[in-house]
Amino acid sequence: MSGSQISNGRGHRVVITGGAGFLGSHMCEYLLERNFEVVCVDNLLTSSHRNIDSLTADPRFSFVLHDIAQPLEIQGPVEYVMHLASPASPRDYMQYPIETLLAGSSGTRWALEIAKENGAVLLLASTSEVYGDPEVNPQAESYWGRVNPVGPRSVYDEAKRFAEAMTMAYHRKHGMDVRIARLFNVYGPRMRLNDGRVLPAFMSQALSNEPLTIYGNGSQTRSFCYVDDMVEGLSRLMTCSISKFGGNGRSSGVQLPIVNLGNPEEVTVLQLAREVVETTGSFSDISFEPLPEDDPKLRRPDITKAQTLLQWEPTVPRAEGLRKVTPYFRAALAGEPEADKVTVHG
Amino acid sequence: MSGSQISNGRGHRVVITGGAGFLGSHMCEYLLERNFEVVCVDNLLTSSHRNIDSLTADPRFSFVLHDIAQPLEIQGPVEYVMHLASPASPRDYMQYPIETLLAGSSGTRWALEIAKENGAVLLLASTSEVYGDPEVNPQAESYWGRVNPVGPRSVYDEAKRFAEAMTMAYHRKHGMDVRIARLFNVYGPRMRLNDGRVLPAFMSQALSNEPLTIYGNGSQTRSFCYVDDMVEGLSRLMTCSISKFGGNGRSSGVQLPIVNLGNPEEVTVLQLAREVVETTGSFSDISFEPLPEDDPKLRRPDITKAQTLLQWEPTVPRAEGLRKVTPYFRAALAGEPEADKVTVHG
Repeated sequence: MSGSQISNGRGHRVVITGGAGFLGSHMCEYLLERNFEVVCVDNLLTSSHRNIDSLTADPRFSFVLHDIAQPLEIQGPVEYVMHLASPASPRDYMQYPIETLLAGSSGTRWALEIAKENGAVLLLASTSEVYGDPEVNPQAESYWGRVNPVGPRSVYDEAKRFAEAMTMAYHRKHGMDVRIARLFNVYGPRMRLNDGRVLPAFMSQALSNEPLTIYGNGSQTRSFCYVDDMVEGLSRLMTCSISKFGGNGRSSGVQLPIVNLGNPEEVTVLQLAREVVETTGSFSDISFEPLPEDDPKLRRPDITKAQTLLQWEPTVPRAEGLRKVTPYFRAALAGEPEADKVTVHG
Repeated sequence: MSGSQISNGRGHRVVITGGAGFLGSHMCEYLLERNFEVVCVDNLLTSSHRNIDSLTADPRFSFVLHDIAQPLEIQGPVEYVMHLASPASPRDYMQYPIETLLAGSSGTRWALEIAKENGAVLLLASTSEVYGDPEVNPQAESYWGRVNPVGPRSVYDEAKRFAEAMTMAYHRKHGMDVRIARLFNVYGPRMRLNDGRVLPAFMSQALSNEPLTIYGNGSQTRSFCYVDDMVEGLSRLMTCSISKFGGNGRSSGVQLPIVNLGNPEEVTVLQLAREVVETTGSFSDISFEPLPEDDPKLRRPDITKAQTLLQWEPTVPRAEGLRKVTPYFRAALAGEPEADKVTVHG
């Protein structure tokens, strides 16, 4: 996309839960640049205030240290609530299983209540994990998913499926204007080096000239969306007219307000490892470890709905994204505080 | 089974959430008869104090009017917590979608906390609905299910899947002794005539000589377990040695403490209608209506695990169960208060 469609002359106010996280902080920045007022709510469990340090001088930005699994009253006006708060990497949600379940259940409930009290639009950041280990590829929004309800990953997968069910229940019961984004893998500056995701792990290993660890034989596929593309897609979904989804405020099932967001360019984990080695100019080898339980084998979004309804698709090819993000990981690995300030937007 | 294996010379104390419901009240009775102390916790949303009126004179029985979606402290000792509380029929959970989501999420959490505080065993009453509209028949505990996370039934299905995920998280995180029962359809005295389930609906219609309403062509199958069999199975699962499930308190996935309970005798809805007409001596015809969204087509439990680990299987054939339950429905339909007191146990 040559330019964003999002503009906001009226200074709309948006509450972003998880706003101090990797994705949330980019979302805060993006919306401030487009003249929104931003209320960032975060408990800093797996996020960091450093992600938003540079925003605190902006009078249109405010930060509330709060766990959204507990009720929160926000004095209006509030036009939008984006519920992004949750531990989101396997390492994080294994470490914080109960907190992850609560972010999806009670957290979604209290985010919905803020929106309901203020007559605001609620956008839920859900996940491709609701599709589990899918039988179809790519995954469209109509696919019900194949998820183990009692496996070790279920604290995240089922929390997000529950969050979707609760969001739709508020939509159907109270006629609320809600939107659900199912996010596929996102990458970019401010990812933590040790969050357990494949891309930061590969970057850390490559930049340290250590072997890149692949679980299984590396034939499992993923798709990686650059964070700038993702925040653009989330903004479009949040601000688009509800009429795109049937418009009567109580969807019947034909056109639910649920949209996949991600990069449809699929890559095997093995190919990604090779690309990271090449992009970083690393001397690393590749090593193989056993596959963990319930690791999804395929994951690629069908983004037809986003293309059609939001005129959105990713614009940053993986080769470019990997080049753009390398300086951040290099700085982060060196422990430079500048790692947080690497400018990659625009 | 010729007789119950459950006995309790030590007067163990059990907390039963949803104890004033159809199933819960039978559970209370069963355990009181076996020398348990019973603390019945219920908010009476879809249940009735009349179900437990006859128990209140027993000094070993106490009732707490409380919504378990809110925290509750129970002074010990407590050896067992059975979390049965939830709206459970489609009509109920469509009417109370948010309350249903909260019973499964916050309700499960606070039930787990009572068990954790007291070092008690937690038994979660889950449901065959976690299997959704299954691709396999019968359904074994290892089947992951096929559930629409955003359909109208998701308020119940996803709430129960979430409840299972949270129960397993407490098990893995805190080493708690938990058991999950997946209940298939249960029937018996104290079912409400208008709860929307197929069996009370058929009974009401047959006893009024009105046409029995079938949704779809009636080829969808169900299985019906008489309530006496179900409470026996739940008791065995609650009190059996955890060593049956691997025994170390942190199951690896090979032998999770999850057991189907239900009657494996499958029947089409059309056949059930004919049996109800015959049992009640009704003059009713059968009428057909369109199938609602996401109605499961097949539902039959694989109870091998319950047979093997608990030496449990249903003992009341459907023909006998339908005969036993008919007087209750006849009295309930006539509005007789005696409907609550019809004795069918033993």
